[in-house]
Amino acid sequence: MALEQQLQSIDTPFLLIDKPKFEANIVALRLRLKPFQVQLRPHLKTVKSVEGAKHVLPDFESPAVVSTLREAEVFAQAGYRNLTYAVGITAQKLPRILALLNKGIDISILLDSIAQAQAVAAFCQTHECSIPTLLEIDCDGHRGGIKASDPLLIEIGNILHQGGVELRGVLTHAGESYACDSRQALIEAAEGERAAAVEAAVNLTTQGLPCPVVSVGSTPTAHFAQNLDGVTEVRAGVYTFFDLVMAGIGVCSAENIALSVVTSVIGHNPEKNWLFIDAGWMALSQDRGTRNQKIDRGYGLVCDINGRIIPGLQVSAANQEHGIITACGDQNLTDIVLGTKLRILPNHACATGAMHSGYYVADPDSSELDYWHRIQGW
Amino acid sequence: MALEQQLQSIDTPFLLIDKPKFEANIVALRLRLKPFQVQLRPHLKTVKSVEGAKHVLPDFESPAVVSTLREAEVFAQAGYRNLTYAVGITAQKLPRILALLNKGIDISILLDSIAQAQAVAAFCQTHECSIPTLLEIDCDGHRGGIKASDPLLIEIGNILHQGGVELRGVLTHAGESYACDSRQALIEAAEGERAAAVEAAVNLTTQGLPCPVVSVGSTPTAHFAQNLDGVTEVRAGVYTFFDLVMAGIGVCSAENIALSVVTSVIGHNPEKNWLFIDAGWMALSQDRGTRNQKIDRGYGLVCDINGRIIPGLQVSAANQEHGIITACGDQNLTDIVLGTKLRILPNHACATGAMHSGYYVADPDSSELDYWHRIQGW
Repeated sequence: MALEQQLQSIDTPFLLIDKPKFEANIVALRLRLKPFQVQLRPHLKTVKSVEGAKHVLPDFESPAVVSTLREAEVFAQAGYRNLTYAVGITAQKLPRILALLNKGIDISILLDSIAQAQAVAAFCQTHECSIPTLLEIDCDGHRGGIKASDPLLIEIGNILHQGGVELRGVLTHAGESYACDSRQALIEAAEGERAAAVEAAVNLTTQGLPCPVVSVGSTPTAHFAQNLDGVTEVRAGVYTFFDLVMAGIGVCSAENIALSVVTSVIGHNPEKNWLFIDAGWMALSQDRGTRNQKIDRGYGLVCDINGRIIPGLQVSAANQEHGIITACGDQNLTDIVLGTKLRILPNHACATGAMHSGYYVADPDSSELDYWHRIQGW
Repeated sequence: MALEQQLQSIDTPFLLIDKPKFEANIVALRLRLKPFQVQLRPHLKTVKSVEGAKHVLPDFESPAVVSTLREAEVFAQAGYRNLTYAVGITAQKLPRILALLNKGIDISILLDSIAQAQAVAAFCQTHECSIPTLLEIDCDGHRGGIKASDPLLIEIGNILHQGGVELRGVLTHAGESYACDSRQALIEAAEGERAAAVEAAVNLTTQGLPCPVVSVGSTPTAHFAQNLDGVTEVRAGVYTFFDLVMAGIGVCSAENIALSVVTSVIGHNPEKNWLFIDAGWMALSQDRGTRNQKIDRGYGLVCDINGRIIPGLQVSAANQEHGIITACGDQNLTDIVLGTKLRILPNHACATGAMHSGYYVADPDSSELDYWHRIQGW
């Protein structure tokens, strides 16, 4: 059956991966990072799927990042053995980390405070184990982390190292890079990430503390870094699908976006020239990440069923199970008849993905759509 | 085990129902509507759970509204027999409606255009069936629907009636009532809803068309209607849990909110006086429904583990798995130590619920937390 017919046969709304675009995006970052001789550690919080991870990671030994312990457990169960849980740890979560370590999974955890270091050291002493730890470095004031020059870094490193906990290295994330609006700003964000991580690593090793891993990353900085000297690994997640936020900051074009929500026209408001679709925020998410960009894409851009962008249209509002498409020009939206299927490109792939329990996967080389399950819960 | 201990024993983040508040909210609207002698048709898109519906609906014959065909199918499977699918219909969705009708479920559908009426009439002729239909009336310019005075109403009514389709009545929803900011405005929104629905019903019956059902509703208007003359049923959904949006427009107080997300403190930024929690938008949703209210509640208000609001704190920002709590006063947030469990009251119960596959249910009379599954997908 031709792809269009396959898509027409499924009840809307549903999440769709354009597999050739997905694979091209994965290859593009791999190729880009090749000259730098750093390891790529993909963030699986975006694809959040065992079937999808098979395309993102070359093999079971490949490093990956996760955002929940549930992800860690499911990917470990699937065979992946080298994981970083990149959300600040608490004592209550350590038993699940230990259970993974005891299964032979190399899972590292993240921390940035004395309280966390003491909790991890106490746990390791009680359980006669060692847990690989990464110190979170603040490179841009975005969220948490220790400043590279802060004496706290050494203090925490000592608590861990002297407490018999494996100090694996440092990790930073240029969260502010998502607000960049020029190539130069992206390059500077990447350099800021690198400089902070390397400075922290030097400060640790100068004090005799180990720091084998120097981890940086975000999709914008991974795609724009000019120099990765001193960095051992780069993390990125949304590069696999891309989205309108990434297109808005110039990391990709809208044509590179591999994820969409397939929806049906369920009504019109002829007076207002509105088109109603059965993708509301339950299907699209409430992410409005383009709101503060140069061009606000509302709740998403509109494509035809074959994925060609229809110029001038966007989803301007979303209720629970209703989306409202408007036109910026003089297109008469009543021309798009009841039952027409459309694809909506998302603002934020992670957020739109999270609204669904799985993806249909469109591959022009295959006679059937594949279906990949998404990991849910914590 | 005491409730606090039960809550401490579960890995965060998770969704929690305060059962006494949930039950009190359900009873409150039932009692409020009693003098009006109208039927209450709860919207199950909020609780979206078979176990939860048992508390919302007195019995299997009780009328209910659903927002997806999946909800209709799951609630029908559970035994409920009187449903309205209150999202505009398309031809492609009619086979699933017919399958429900063939199982003895009384399910009515919604439409507001000639194209939909023709599609339904053609389907019914082809399949030698009748489907109960409701005409959507536009009472406040919020989204779709036909104006009560529009001759289109009669035209569509005739297409259905002459096409052998059951014309069940009219339905309207004062979507604009969510933007009200005074008691008087809420009362007027309710009267606008009633007046539009009754006018449409009179216009249909004057033309010899049937209109046994006159359906109005939203949680704000259901709680503020002063007169329901001519109305046969009232729909409402979020009244079961309530949320900060409803508190902001004066329909409830924050103390009535029966839904929260239980989360753990996972870090601090002492310099900025920020507290990090493990409830980001994956757990809280990205709903910012209080953004344009008199008081913006960010991503939610903060309570202690027992549900007591901590004054002056709110979740001001949310990333995927991180929430950031800030204080509006001079509270030192580093006093709230790592691992502390908190409850976050949501802006919008439907949206926060949608991020989870189920609820823990806290009942002080029970020695164990119950768990209710949520319906997912479409």
